[in-house]
Amino acid sequence: MSEPFQRVALIGLGLIAGSMAHAMRGGGLARQIVGHARSAETRETARRIGLVDEVFDTAAEAVRGADLVVLAVPVGAMAAVAEEIGPHLAPGAILTDVGSVKQAVIDAVGPHMPEGVHFIPGHPLAGTEHSGPESGFASLFRNRWWLLTPLPGTDPAAQERLTALIRAMGANADVMEPEHHDLVLAVTSHVPHLIAYTMVGVADHLRRVTEGEVVNYSAAGFRDFTRIAASDPTMWRDVFLHNREATLDILGRFTEELFMLQRAIRMGDGTLLHDYFSRTRAIRRGIIDAGQDTAAPDFGRAIVEGKQGGQAR
Amino acid sequence: MSEPFQRVALIGLGLIAGSMAHAMRGGGLARQIVGHARSAETRETARRIGLVDEVFDTAAEAVRGADLVVLAVPVGAMAAVAEEIGPHLAPGAILTDVGSVKQAVIDAVGPHMPEGVHFIPGHPLAGTEHSGPESGFASLFRNRWWLLTPLPGTDPAAQERLTALIRAMGANADVMEPEHHDLVLAVTSHVPHLIAYTMVGVADHLRRVTEGEVVNYSAAGFRDFTRIAASDPTMWRDVFLHNREATLDILGRFTEELFMLQRAIRMGDGTLLHDYFSRTRAIRRGIIDAGQDTAAPDFGRAIVEGKQGGQAR
Repeated sequence: MSEPFQRVALIGLGLIAGSMAHAMRGGGLARQIVGHARSAETRETARRIGLVDEVFDTAAEAVRGADLVVLAVPVGAMAAVAEEIGPHLAPGAILTDVGSVKQAVIDAVGPHMPEGVHFIPGHPLAGTEHSGPESGFASLFRNRWWLLTPLPGTDPAAQERLTALIRAMGANADVMEPEHHDLVLAVTSHVPHLIAYTMVGVADHLRRVTEGEVVNYSAAGFRDFTRIAASDPTMWRDVFLHNREATLDILGRFTEELFMLQRAIRMGDGTLLHDYFSRTRAIRRGIIDAGQDTAAPDFGRAIVEGKQGGQAR
Repeated sequence: MSEPFQRVALIGLGLIAGSMAHAMRGGGLARQIVGHARSAETRETARRIGLVDEVFDTAAEAVRGADLVVLAVPVGAMAAVAEEIGPHLAPGAILTDVGSVKQAVIDAVGPHMPEGVHFIPGHPLAGTEHSGPESGFASLFRNRWWLLTPLPGTDPAAQERLTALIRAMGANADVMEPEHHDLVLAVTSHVPHLIAYTMVGVADHLRRVTEGEVVNYSAAGFRDFTRIAASDPTMWRDVFLHNREATLDILGRFTEELFMLQRAIRMGDGTLLHDYFSRTRAIRRGIIDAGQDTAAPDFGRAIVEGKQGGQAR
């Protein structure tokens, strides 16, 4: 970072915005950080814990004079926020967002951006199953990817400045086409989340299996699913509603594959199952080789030492 | 443990048997540990690393004079092994297995057990995505559940002795009906694994998303899936073929739920999605409250520090 931002306005004060506040403060990346949240309770909490330098009751007030504005609200709330703040944005300001879907955000926000404001959509691939103003922490973005989907004609200097901030918070920046982003994320994140929600829902409904047993004997497969399925309901509702086409496309492929495997189980086709499971094992190796995860056999276990953990078979 | 076993015979020398060998040695729970594996390569590796005191070329030789025999082979191989060793088992010996399915193992093994041998089926809910004679480690079972599904009329003293061994290896022992075990595990482990295999298969086939991107941007949702989908193909083929009814039952419920959510996405029914995601979040809380996992927001991150990790949104 050559020069810190003078005033950063965070619209929405949840996990991502809170983590950005911590990371920017820790790194001296902004002289002043202000914010706004729609909920009075969230604003009160943010003030109490001193999450940012000043909390405003409206988004319009918060963005005044800011040279960086970050929209960190659910995707479905982006249009209304953009409409409200548009007239109050400072000329030359950079405006970005952290939504998990990009084309829908571009459609929602773009029309409200005045001339001279640099709108550069973004998506940090980082998070936890926790949410709210107290859930953030400075290292959330460290070694995580932060994808930007800039529009044609984006000012290179503004994009470089935003990229430098992202890197200074510890993330790896990369650029992608919005539509392609939405498809890749449908595969690697959105549909896996929907599936995890579904599987946990099945367990919940199954009356023959009491909740006590599901909890007691929750093996790694299912326990990982419950963690994923504990993510913020509003955020995920909006992801699915606003990445509908890619989600339905991937879901269609998923159920085709699942029915093929289900039929193989019903028909007793062990060869098909074995071949399929051997191929997926190779993909895992690729992720380990790429340094995206560890091959340690006790992965994730050290942290729950003394508690029930491990992977069931 | 009051009295160590005189001679433990491990049939199959993979992750579970190897971990048992390490745990029993470390705890002085057996005077002698011998073993057999069907593959000559596995036997050679086991001899080279000194996994057990003696490796036999046949299962029949290995079980001679053993007061504890453990069948640690894929579920589909249980019947043949039981038939081979049946005539060679010592009177009064305890025979258990570690298969992930219980009714099928009872049907396969039971008929070959001679009078005076105590057959007590079991299933340790522990494992990693690794397999083979070099993948075991002594702490694999620590604080994990080890379920026994004893048959009617099982000798209480034999069951108590096996339970004491399980506890001495660090696991929590519990008892369950075989059919109920197979249903509970279908929900908490088997179907989640099949789903993970399927999702990874979808990503593999999708040509518009290159493998490089799936690997690079593999968020926690998908990365967890690839870990699950890297498990031993033979073991899992056999699980699905031998827990067919419960698996198909749960799969049917799963696709019903998934189609309901898919329809809600297509129709834009945000209320249904939000309500569903709120309910599943509550189940996660139950697991944390029960001490089955940690609520730490950086769960699983410390281990991959310096590498790409984290949970995408």
